[in-house]
Amino acid sequence: MAARDLLETSRKDLARVLGTTKERIIFTSGGTEADSIAMLSTMTSTAPRSIVISAIEHAAIYEQARVLKSLGTTVIMIKPDHAGFIDPAAVAAAVRPDTVLVAVMAVNNETGAIQPIKAIASAVREAAAGSGRRPFVHCDAVQALGKIPVEPELWGVDGVAFSAHKLGGPRGCGALFLGTSIRPLACGGGQESGIRPGTHNTPGAWAFAQSAIRATQMLDTSMATARHLEELLIDGVDSIPGASVIPNSRRPGDQRYSPYILSMAFPGLGGETMLRLLDEAGIAVSTGAACSGSKKERRVFDAMGIEPSLSFASLRVSIGRSTDDHDIFAFLEAASAAYARYRL
Amino acid sequence: MAARDLLETSRKDLARVLGTTKERIIFTSGGTEADSIAMLSTMTSTAPRSIVISAIEHAAIYEQARVLKSLGTTVIMIKPDHAGFIDPAAVAAAVRPDTVLVAVMAVNNETGAIQPIKAIASAVREAAAGSGRRPFVHCDAVQALGKIPVEPELWGVDGVAFSAHKLGGPRGCGALFLGTSIRPLACGGGQESGIRPGTHNTPGAWAFAQSAIRATQMLDTSMATARHLEELLIDGVDSIPGASVIPNSRRPGDQRYSPYILSMAFPGLGGETMLRLLDEAGIAVSTGAACSGSKKERRVFDAMGIEPSLSFASLRVSIGRSTDDHDIFAFLEAASAAYARYRL
Repeated sequence: MAARDLLETSRKDLARVLGTTKERIIFTSGGTEADSIAMLSTMTSTAPRSIVISAIEHAAIYEQARVLKSLGTTVIMIKPDHAGFIDPAAVAAAVRPDTVLVAVMAVNNETGAIQPIKAIASAVREAAAGSGRRPFVHCDAVQALGKIPVEPELWGVDGVAFSAHKLGGPRGCGALFLGTSIRPLACGGGQESGIRPGTHNTPGAWAFAQSAIRATQMLDTSMATARHLEELLIDGVDSIPGASVIPNSRRPGDQRYSPYILSMAFPGLGGETMLRLLDEAGIAVSTGAACSGSKKERRVFDAMGIEPSLSFASLRVSIGRSTDDHDIFAFLEAASAAYARYRL
Repeated sequence: MAARDLLETSRKDLARVLGTTKERIIFTSGGTEADSIAMLSTMTSTAPRSIVISAIEHAAIYEQARVLKSLGTTVIMIKPDHAGFIDPAAVAAAVRPDTVLVAVMAVNNETGAIQPIKAIASAVREAAAGSGRRPFVHCDAVQALGKIPVEPELWGVDGVAFSAHKLGGPRGCGALFLGTSIRPLACGGGQESGIRPGTHNTPGAWAFAQSAIRATQMLDTSMATARHLEELLIDGVDSIPGASVIPNSRRPGDQRYSPYILSMAFPGLGGETMLRLLDEAGIAVSTGAACSGSKKERRVFDAMGIEPSLSFASLRVSIGRSTDDHDIFAFLEAASAAYARYRL
């Protein structure tokens, strides 16, 4: 009973952080599972159907969409513009009478581009109103929670996926905001209102809620620090001859991007090579998505129309809660030295 | 890199406990997800298909089968005998040319009946050999690991589901033994050989492996204690006028049952009522499966042909690692007193 109280208190705490009610919080084993619940629920009908997703979704949505496609679902893919943004009108225009789900992420995990989720949800509602249907509007906000304001109710979406470990919580735990009822494909013991079966990870849920509270309380302070570091980073990259940020139109302080993520290119030096050189210098960055299986893929940049000569010479730098000026300067120094020495 | 080492060491440790190789261990978020991976993989084909499951499966299999059935899969259900056992020949006889999966649990979570998994797998293989097909033979061993010997390779099965918290490990973590390659339905970042996407719960995997090592090392000692407690419990129930164990043929020391689980009936007193009376006395037992959504359901007993007058007056008692003689006597005393006072 104490465990149940703790679980429900945690649910209430997380709901408050998200500006919603606890009935709309489903604890999951992570962001991927939260996405999966939404995506797989489209399979509980045998009617012909389509889904609309952005071309820059995380693998949890993108790879799942490929599987759905192989099983008969029509997958309509919306490309971003050159700066990495999805146009709400383009999403709305793609919605068909048989569209059961629309998924666009909140913050892209390679570019940091903050997508106009509220406008997308609203445009989709309007487009679908005519057909009398109501596609499930889903948003993977794994890179958003604790970093930028996340307001599922205000956004007007049906589902939002979260992961605890992205905001200082433990691995193996996440949540799905669920604003509407769905029929889940994966079933079992009926936990989490039948939406996510399996014994509750109560300690994980508690730690997740606590981290979400703290991260949200510190949102403004963290953002100010991150914007400061973003400026150092972008200015630093620009000062390395030949190097550039991706997209190159991105300037410090641009509110359309999360300052916590920045991609950049060192043309003439493969991203994987640079990664190893930086690793030797004690600096941890990544090429593309850290959780992507294949490091050879540059699908987000391809979708943005970034040339392969840039995308394969790219690095992704993430700013964490403990990153400081010194870390940024150390990175810039090491990257600059490696680039000067090894570029083709 | 240290985290990856720890994860792979944990995988190796768990593999050793199970008598298999680390390539065959997929870490999951729990037993339900391990079952789900096997069950949902049947949906990656659009061909007509059937699955064969026992009628006494845990909800993670049983409820999932109901969903698959609603979407077109033929679900063939094998009933147990009156003592709670599944007949290998009956399972084999149910296998059809279109059967893609067979699932029978290792230890039933309400009766403790240990199913003849090796004989079932072997009978299924023989039956399917003629059709040239090879159904995936799955076993939910959540109630078995750390309690009875678990040997997936020896059993000759394709999949075995485990949960960490059943053997002293943390909640939110489990594993799937996977002896053959499958196409998973839920996809994402490609972790766990693409079989279970999502950021690794490395601490959970480590704690799981450690608990599995300890539980396995103590298997014989724990079993001796559990058999002793089982004897006290069965003898005690038999000495309460009107009460009986379920099935009533079960005697202390019967190797066909896990001593850790015992069901019993107090005819004339509802299980739910008894549960509350015992709870007031500080004793925690359950009616039916602890993880079942609806407490009104007695499907395992129904399948065994147990009369409703017994099944609705039933309790499930679990022996944990810290249970001792005193606990058993306290339970018997409280149950006996409550029964004498409140039976109809």
